[in-house]
Amino acid sequence: MNAVLDRPSIDLARQREVVAALAAILPASALLHAREDVQPYECDGLSAYRRLPMVVALPETEDQVQRILKICHRLRVPVVARGAGTGLSGGALPPGDGVLLSLARFMRILEIDPAARTARLQPGVRNLAISEAALQYGLYYAPDPSSQIACSIGGNVAENSGGMHCLKYGLTVHNILRLRAFSIEGELLEIGSGGLDSAGYDLLALMTGSEGLLAVITEVTVKLLPIPQRAQCILAAFDEVVKAGQAVANIIAAGIIPAGLEMMDKITTGAVEPFVKAGYPLDAEAILLCESDGNEAEVAEEIERMKAVMHASGATEVRVSASEAERLRFWAGRKAAFPAAGRVSPDYYCMDGTIPKKALPRVLNAITELSVKYGLRCMNVFHAGDGNLHPLILYDANQPGELERTEQFGAEILKLSIEVGGTITGEHGVGVEKINAMCEQFGTLELAAFHAVKAAFDEHALLNPGKAVPTLHRCAEYGQMHVHGGSEKFRDLPRF
Amino acid sequence: MNAVLDRPSIDLARQREVVAALAAILPASALLHAREDVQPYECDGLSAYRRLPMVVALPETEDQVQRILKICHRLRVPVVARGAGTGLSGGALPPGDGVLLSLARFMRILEIDPAARTARLQPGVRNLAISEAALQYGLYYAPDPSSQIACSIGGNVAENSGGMHCLKYGLTVHNILRLRAFSIEGELLEIGSGGLDSAGYDLLALMTGSEGLLAVITEVTVKLLPIPQRAQCILAAFDEVVKAGQAVANIIAAGIIPAGLEMMDKITTGAVEPFVKAGYPLDAEAILLCESDGNEAEVAEEIERMKAVMHASGATEVRVSASEAERLRFWAGRKAAFPAAGRVSPDYYCMDGTIPKKALPRVLNAITELSVKYGLRCMNVFHAGDGNLHPLILYDANQPGELERTEQFGAEILKLSIEVGGTITGEHGVGVEKINAMCEQFGTLELAAFHAVKAAFDEHALLNPGKAVPTLHRCAEYGQMHVHGGSEKFRDLPRF
Repeated sequence: MNAVLDRPSIDLARQREVVAALAAILPASALLHAREDVQPYECDGLSAYRRLPMVVALPETEDQVQRILKICHRLRVPVVARGAGTGLSGGALPPGDGVLLSLARFMRILEIDPAARTARLQPGVRNLAISEAALQYGLYYAPDPSSQIACSIGGNVAENSGGMHCLKYGLTVHNILRLRAFSIEGELLEIGSGGLDSAGYDLLALMTGSEGLLAVITEVTVKLLPIPQRAQCILAAFDEVVKAGQAVANIIAAGIIPAGLEMMDKITTGAVEPFVKAGYPLDAEAILLCESDGNEAEVAEEIERMKAVMHASGATEVRVSASEAERLRFWAGRKAAFPAAGRVSPDYYCMDGTIPKKALPRVLNAITELSVKYGLRCMNVFHAGDGNLHPLILYDANQPGELERTEQFGAEILKLSIEVGGTITGEHGVGVEKINAMCEQFGTLELAAFHAVKAAFDEHALLNPGKAVPTLHRCAEYGQMHVHGGSEKFRDLPRF
Repeated sequence: MNAVLDRPSIDLARQREVVAALAAILPASALLHAREDVQPYECDGLSAYRRLPMVVALPETEDQVQRILKICHRLRVPVVARGAGTGLSGGALPPGDGVLLSLARFMRILEIDPAARTARLQPGVRNLAISEAALQYGLYYAPDPSSQIACSIGGNVAENSGGMHCLKYGLTVHNILRLRAFSIEGELLEIGSGGLDSAGYDLLALMTGSEGLLAVITEVTVKLLPIPQRAQCILAAFDEVVKAGQAVANIIAAGIIPAGLEMMDKITTGAVEPFVKAGYPLDAEAILLCESDGNEAEVAEEIERMKAVMHASGATEVRVSASEAERLRFWAGRKAAFPAAGRVSPDYYCMDGTIPKKALPRVLNAITELSVKYGLRCMNVFHAGDGNLHPLILYDANQPGELERTEQFGAEILKLSIEVGGTITGEHGVGVEKINAMCEQFGTLELAAFHAVKAAFDEHALLNPGKAVPTLHRCAEYGQMHVHGGSEKFRDLPRF
């Protein structure tokens, strides 16, 4: 973390060569290379990592994207695609020796088809703008990352983003139908179909969450859903964090699939309440927000069942939103949790491990113990219903050793997530941030399979190099090289 | 169709070599090669295509699977994995010069975890057996292909099977969490996680529906769902097929997601009713079965809304199942539709095109016109809610020219499916049956991407050769070679 990676040895001759080639197809306003012009692109939402790109390209048409890629392929120049730059794992950290390809100018909603319940979008369209445009038809786009005001649908596809509602409505991959994407050779791939399924290998799923390593997306067709008749939210308070974790497991075990099921602990509610005024009970060790949506009758019955489970799980207080305004207030606190961390600590480090729901009490206990062990506070705020943890480790980078302890604490949480059968990332991606943890999660053979897939689309490893999938060499250096019992040999290592 | 592909030029020396190598690791009872012993494996559910395998292997352990694959890889012997053999596109058609690898003996349910709501299964476990075993916990496995009594979960994964309930509950890919699979080199890949998402490229989705071309699956962990409190089914009758199609579009447009939405036309109900006695109105040109499931209140309200849409769409009769027995009777007719086709025609050809739901009326009209054009009757029975058409073209193979006309009729339906933005297969797979249609659906670049993925996992193309993805050479011969406007060059053709 906090690795400021400058472009120390920028090769000016190389920069001139690339700029000259791109200048033939892009106007000057779409081609940046002066230090002060490329500075705004030095990082994404994981601002601890920064690096100045050699060149920034801002195309406006598919034709320009295609030509940029062909030039970069011919000259063997690395290319990193960037959406809104809200990513939290450094997936859009620019290449110091290559082109940052911004898709910010691809902002058009190309078509909304209310009969088919689909929207055809350029990749730079903001997530929330989709639902805003669909509102007139009574429709909306379900995946709702916390950054939905700013983040773009292209980035959502690249990271397979989730959000509060993905427990019931699925991740990005479950809510898209088609993609147009260009390979590094500049070849157009038309992926998916208007039907429920598509023939051939599932390239739609393969591209989704591939973090810009396989192709550059230039169009996304998403599914739209009818806006539910009604939504209502329960706020349940608990005097122990573990009890709240158990309540989550009980809700799921009761066969209820809430529209959202989020947890916040006392540090979090205390940080948020003063400026959001959500009405959270500040003496509770943890609160759950549990939402029901659907038709009137369904919501009424489901809310009763949710209340019963909360009481049976030892909730000290159970409140049901009495109005749409109150429901939105409940959620406003949750949505402000990350920014609020800045009010209680100079720095924080957000984790994204995802675990089987039944392991929640165990993992929450372990995080409490780790917090004592490392002498660092931790805010627990997360998508409880789908086991997607976002512990925020609070630290002060100016205190010697705190950053290192924070990183060790985070690494232990990820190891634990893997140990209980979970994964190191639920929705933020691997990027540069969790690349070492990939060596923990996967064995040599799975990593080799990832590299083989990468080579199938990008044999020279020009698209977003150094992200998402570690080299076997890196894992060996990191001291992790899993070999499954059943295997006797390794595949040839890919050369990148 | 009806292509009986014998093993005309079986290489006896080669057969001896392969049998000798496999005999070192398999008991005699697990290794078949005499003509009469391998005969039962000559085809799957697409019995028009038959071919005798050179060798049949019946392993019982992962270790044996691994060794078989290593031997086949070393000797460069093709391998076709087979589950229950119920596939409808010839995906398990054996190799005349290779090993049919039956997973029929992998029949154990390894674990049911009611807290995590998962089941860990060997691939030969029957689809219905999963729900039977989960019943004691109030859970079930949602995807329910018509063949669920017989078909196996491994085959379901290989084909990404659907079923009556996949409109609401998703395809196989949406209902599995983890796979254990062996590459052709005999390397174990552990894919997926117990969390909602997994890091790295989505190999879980890539394997699902890959029709045995990428790896051999030896274990599947599926998600289980709570059995709904209640289910109720509407039977709606229409005096025109197109009106029934419009009613489907209207249900979806009203924001209702039924648990099942199936259509049968008059020929189908007439064929089924005499022996199922479902109580279908035989004067109706088409009927819809529309199911609601969930909690009591939700079902009651949803059924009312469904009834209103059916009436508004011009239904001549709307009946609601008054008991669980009646609900099951409604469905019994639907489930018997395929076998019933045998009562009204010597032969039938089942299609599987999937289209956007809004195109239903147009496509149904076109099928009626094509039926007249080719002078062949067609039973329309299908998963209407997800646009997955199963027209059954009725023909008599003994009448000169009928088979050819049937194939042309079918090809026109698939072309039309592609034209309206759909796809050539919803749930039955491509196999050998629809391999030419793949040339219609995909351009050269998409096919090249498929081949690159294949080569990443199986560079010598030993796993299920000749299935699912046509060579570019084949498409050129078939007279279809799409080239997208945006592309100037092709990738190198793979050598298989």
